[in-house]
Amino acid sequence: MKQYLKHHEWQIIEEGFDPHYNKISESIFSIGNGRMGQRANFEEEYSGDTLPGSYVAGVYYPDKTRVGWWKNGYPEYFAKVLNAPSWISIHVMIENQKLDLAKCKVENFRRVLDMKIGLLTRSFSATFQDGKQVSVESKRFCSMAHGEIGAIRYAITPLNFSAKGIFSIAVDADVVNKDSNYDEKFWEEVNRHASEGDAFVTAQTRKTKFQVCTGMRYFIFEEGKEVTGRINIEERDKYAGNVVQLDLHKGKEVVVYKYAAVLSSQNHEKEKLAANCKSVLNEAVAKGFDALLDEHVAVWNKKWNACDITIEGDMAAQQGIRFNIFQLTQTYTGDDERLNIGPKGFTGEKYGGSTYWDTEAYCLPFFLSTAEQKVARNLLVYRHKHLQKAIENAVKLGFKNGAALYPMVTMNGEECHNEWEITFEEIHRNGAIAYAIYDYVRYTGDDEYLASHGLEVLIGISRFWAQRVNWSAEKNKYVMLGVTGPNEYENNVNNNWYTNYLAVWTLRYTLETIRNVKSKHASGYQSLISRLVFDELSEGAKWAHIIEHMYFPVDKSRGVILQQDGFLDKELLTVKDLKPEERPINQKWSWDRILRSCFIKQADVLQGIYFFEDHFDHETIKKNFDFYEPMTVHESSLSPCVHVILASRLGYEDKAYEMYLRTSRLDLDDYNNDTEDGCHITSMAGTWLSVVKGFGGMKVLNDKLHLNPFIPRQWNSYSFRIEFRSRVIKVKVSKSSTETSLESGEPVEIVLGDKPIRLQK
Amino acid sequence: MKQYLKHHEWQIIEEGFDPHYNKISESIFSIGNGRMGQRANFEEEYSGDTLPGSYVAGVYYPDKTRVGWWKNGYPEYFAKVLNAPSWISIHVMIENQKLDLAKCKVENFRRVLDMKIGLLTRSFSATFQDGKQVSVESKRFCSMAHGEIGAIRYAITPLNFSAKGIFSIAVDADVVNKDSNYDEKFWEEVNRHASEGDAFVTAQTRKTKFQVCTGMRYFIFEEGKEVTGRINIEERDKYAGNVVQLDLHKGKEVVVYKYAAVLSSQNHEKEKLAANCKSVLNEAVAKGFDALLDEHVAVWNKKWNACDITIEGDMAAQQGIRFNIFQLTQTYTGDDERLNIGPKGFTGEKYGGSTYWDTEAYCLPFFLSTAEQKVARNLLVYRHKHLQKAIENAVKLGFKNGAALYPMVTMNGEECHNEWEITFEEIHRNGAIAYAIYDYVRYTGDDEYLASHGLEVLIGISRFWAQRVNWSAEKNKYVMLGVTGPNEYENNVNNNWYTNYLAVWTLRYTLETIRNVKSKHASGYQSLISRLVFDELSEGAKWAHIIEHMYFPVDKSRGVILQQDGFLDKELLTVKDLKPEERPINQKWSWDRILRSCFIKQADVLQGIYFFEDHFDHETIKKNFDFYEPMTVHESSLSPCVHVILASRLGYEDKAYEMYLRTSRLDLDDYNNDTEDGCHITSMAGTWLSVVKGFGGMKVLNDKLHLNPFIPRQWNSYSFRIEFRSRVIKVKVSKSSTETSLESGEPVEIVLGDKPIRLQK
Repeated sequence: MKQYLKHHEWQIIEEGFDPHYNKISESIFSIGNGRMGQRANFEEEYSGDTLPGSYVAGVYYPDKTRVGWWKNGYPEYFAKVLNAPSWISIHVMIENQKLDLAKCKVENFRRVLDMKIGLLTRSFSATFQDGKQVSVESKRFCSMAHGEIGAIRYAITPLNFSAKGIFSIAVDADVVNKDSNYDEKFWEEVNRHASEGDAFVTAQTRKTKFQVCTGMRYFIFEEGKEVTGRINIEERDKYAGNVVQLDLHKGKEVVVYKYAAVLSSQNHEKEKLAANCKSVLNEAVAKGFDALLDEHVAVWNKKWNACDITIEGDMAAQQGIRFNIFQLTQTYTGDDERLNIGPKGFTGEKYGGSTYWDTEAYCLPFFLSTAEQKVARNLLVYRHKHLQKAIENAVKLGFKNGAALYPMVTMNGEECHNEWEITFEEIHRNGAIAYAIYDYVRYTGDDEYLASHGLEVLIGISRFWAQRVNWSAEKNKYVMLGVTGPNEYENNVNNNWYTNYLAVWTLRYTLETIRNVKSKHASGYQSLISRLVFDELSEGAKWAHIIEHMYFPVDKSRGVILQQDGFLDKELLTVKDLKPEERPINQKWSWDRILRSCFIKQADVLQGIYFFEDHFDHETIKKNFDFYEPMTVHESSLSPCVHVILASRLGYEDKAYEMYLRTSRLDLDDYNNDTEDGCHITSMAGTWLSVVKGFGGMKVLNDKLHLNPFIPRQWNSYSFRIEFRSRVIKVKVSKSSTETSLESGEPVEIVLGDKPIRLQK
Repeated sequence: MKQYLKHHEWQIIEEGFDPHYNKISESIFSIGNGRMGQRANFEEEYSGDTLPGSYVAGVYYPDKTRVGWWKNGYPEYFAKVLNAPSWISIHVMIENQKLDLAKCKVENFRRVLDMKIGLLTRSFSATFQDGKQVSVESKRFCSMAHGEIGAIRYAITPLNFSAKGIFSIAVDADVVNKDSNYDEKFWEEVNRHASEGDAFVTAQTRKTKFQVCTGMRYFIFEEGKEVTGRINIEERDKYAGNVVQLDLHKGKEVVVYKYAAVLSSQNHEKEKLAANCKSVLNEAVAKGFDALLDEHVAVWNKKWNACDITIEGDMAAQQGIRFNIFQLTQTYTGDDERLNIGPKGFTGEKYGGSTYWDTEAYCLPFFLSTAEQKVARNLLVYRHKHLQKAIENAVKLGFKNGAALYPMVTMNGEECHNEWEITFEEIHRNGAIAYAIYDYVRYTGDDEYLASHGLEVLIGISRFWAQRVNWSAEKNKYVMLGVTGPNEYENNVNNNWYTNYLAVWTLRYTLETIRNVKSKHASGYQSLISRLVFDELSEGAKWAHIIEHMYFPVDKSRGVILQQDGFLDKELLTVKDLKPEERPINQKWSWDRILRSCFIKQADVLQGIYFFEDHFDHETIKKNFDFYEPMTVHESSLSPCVHVILASRLGYEDKAYEMYLRTSRLDLDDYNNDTEDGCHITSMAGTWLSVVKGFGGMKVLNDKLHLNPFIPRQWNSYSFRIEFRSRVIKVKVSKSSTETSLESGEPVEIVLGDKPIRLQK
């Protein structure tokens, strides 16, 4: 845990330069716009410790799988998030001395991420070995108004000298992934071009053949007057730029405006990529830095109006929650149903793949409540588009007749993870995808989606469950053997309650959806089932039989659900029994010891109760929470939010707040010592859920929004906005009262506590 | 399956050269002497498909572990069996044309491994592109009489020409391991020296710093007269040799005698390595090829006298069993308690490590019955020497107070395997090591071993079991959670019966051994327990409590033992339900499907019943065999022998013979399509067990040898010899009778069927 950042309601502020924190800051100060993103690497050269990261959404590389011991069924490759060609570099040299913060004396260093407007500013003064001193201020953003544009304003002032300065301003596709399995370079040059004032490189990924054209144009001003200097064109493989020699004058600020356009062949024909890149760049240049920034800020204003959470009386919490919202919002904008939310977003390359079950289980509810409906819908459509691949994936594992198993980790719908206990067995993800459809429809009321997309996915998933269970003659019930639940501290268990429950629920919901779609969209239904060769009579009967006869492990004497068969054979300890030096257990204990212990990474019984809260009475929720919570070590960043929500329900306010603290500043304070690899983007949604669904008690029941807030005693007040069925509803909770108001849209009835109230403007 | 080798009672014969079979033959025709070994690579250059393999026992390299997803507790390295410097090369060039069997026309190719005398002979004629023709005959062996000496007689005759011939005769340490994880070269040169007639290279392994000096001296004769030719010294990094230019005369045979000495720093001080190598070489040269061969044959004669099995009426079976005995015998001679029996012996590099539980469970009984007592004893001493490492290994996994967990795979006592479900959970290996002590003492009557070594190991292992179980409040019994049994088609199961049974048996045997040693070696016992800080009262009481209260899964209704908790939840199918195209399931099914199926790689319940046969009545053995045998796919080469033995006990003679066929020619007929990687050395012991313990019904009860033979109806007779307590007993079984005779040693009473008989010379 580190606490070097200043607290501020809207800004993340780093003061003073500590190279040890540089990679952490590079992650935290990342900027993006849903299409492209950039770690907070320096524009100048930096020979110190850094993780260069520039990312283009949807562009990936199938890196050859690395494995110790091959298991039949493993995928051949792991789709890596690619470090893409860099557009930020402005290297500076003054009389043969590089401006390199690892080598100069650095003072007044300040890095500020203004989350309100999505602007990264960095300023410092640097003293070269010969005593020359410059001050620098750079500002940059990735335009939220135009996803292919980035812009930099880089200002440098010679403080105590006049001399020649050399600026290398370029685009550079000669980049590597730190996590390349076999030290391969993933990019090859297609073409490049540099002329005076601009440069372009089109690079192509090996194997996947994605092309990205990165172009830049720049302008230099001294005291507001454009200057050109002596320009040399610099080109080499995968690199194009200008080397500009200028006279710098003591005390006179020189400003480089660098405009970048990053276009991918996903959105442009390859033949037109370079030409289109030029047009986009022309457009950016025509607008200029300030106008581009204004557009960008306007989009952010609109977004914040929909999704902001305010917290009064706790600046650290205020900053934390806004940071989470900011990162989520700039990671996924919901314009493109081919994209998804990677675990590190645009802040790092680790983990690879872009899509995990995190999206459905955690991110979807965030976007449902904070963005237009189409944003969440596109997340569902993404999986619908991958259905055929999910069916092929299931075939590889021996399933048939259209059974679909969605991958654990994917870019394009194909599985790319390779740990057998996860890849093959952590199949609850399939249930989360079905649940997300339900969650979306419940929240939005968009029944149409079921007919057009949802039911097809539900049938594929239900077919999978129906084949994945088997009849136990011993139990006289259906069982599900050999699975790993969300609690990854148990592997290859039998009858994981959460998975069994999701499976049965999916079957039931699919049957219900069939009835619903059949009655409302008869002809669409007929054409769907004939396309799917779905035999409602026999398949439906089988599903009904499974629903009736599924086995669920329970402990009757304690009145608790059992996480899996045999759970009670464990030595039942609590986290308090662990010595501090044993934690986190995933770093201190060998894997087998973790597996046979009762300790829980994230409590999947509680996850199930959270999903299906209305299926359980208060007493059951309490008993299970009281049983599992003390065994949970929360070594998944996705864990605490569920505990916040259930603790809130149960009136365990201090426990709820304690859990909330674990999530809200996870990256800002580098809790897990791994923020340098990138931020925990998907778990940030959990923080939002903690406030709105936890403290705020928000849920949707029978087409109505329900709220049931409490306020942690450490806070004076908090407020949040919710998008709900074309309304924006604002909720403000203070120590004494809860105010709700309708900010836009038609009047609506909501339920506050147990009282219905009508909101209108 | 391939059947290109000729059947012969004492020889393995390949006729005609098929490059597709070359790597298979290289494995099968391997020669060794317990200290060094050599695949049947050609002396000439060969540009075709080949796996060069020269091995020096005990020399390994800690190759950096390769893993997809790191688990806490994994070892940093995997000890690789090293491809060592080559001593066999005699490259031949005639007028700028290399003698290379991939490029010449090859006729009359014949490769013969004479197992009776351990001699590899290869002959062929080769026609160069220009029509020149030579005939070649090479013979080579690794001396069983002197483990550091190899010798080659390489004869070449120009058939239709006279011309200059060039012979490159060298030692070459510039070799690689095919299975190097990161394409590293493992050897570095220490020094080299070549002069006219000889050459030496001392090479050192990186990291482990083993040094091996490989020296050679050669002599060339034409028609019995020594010739020298024009000699050029050839040296380069890691390589030293002579290039000899000779006049070859049509029809006149030229013979190269190449003597090699291979000395390792394990047996010589590094400073003296080169000098000692020269002395050994001097000794070899002084004796000459024929005398060296005579010595070698004499050792083989003695060995065969002790361990041969004859089979009349089935040449393929006769050849098969002798091949198994031959390979085992040349892999491990039992002179050096630092060595062990790697799964590929000296026939390949695959799997790495030298020691698996195969040694204790399968190889030990072979050596107990076919070699002097010290051979088996040294296998036990090997583990005793590793006890401290096993304790350290257990500490890494969270155990304490001297608990020992022997590694799954090792070279020097440290674990080097890295699949969590095996490395951390396949802990039954600990039980096999305890069982081997019992097996040895039962067979030899060498109680002294318990006091001097055995008890210390038993206490370490018992301490492990006592910590590895936990009390289940639910079951009111001790349970053992999260293990993998010998049936590796189940991972991370609870209460694997075999492991639970071995654990309890170990505790009981350790307590019994404590009583025994205490009464016979009181002072030794006291000093041992004080050294081990063993508290007999409290630890003994705990062990007794576990023995009393251990949980064993059973199915009372069927009267069978259950392999593990939950086994009856599976769909219980038999191997007959599998389609041919689904087999072997480990190549056709994904891992999760295998895991949740009932199919068994090797039946561990039956393994347990085989170990502890006298604990079970006939009915129990039958019920369990009838239950598990039909589910067993035998996809481990260690599986069938146990079924042969139990089927033999149950009078299932056809089943016994069917299972025997799966093991006896596994490599000769390349059943599993993997002999090219090397032979399945350790499972060869299972073949021997099948005949002697299976068909022959051999066991030791109360210090007496018992026999209860039957003869498969496909055979006319079979015979085997057993070393038993300083006697050699010969058993010959024909269709009508069983003859037993004492070939050496004092008179002894044995039990044949249920009749005691006295044997004397």
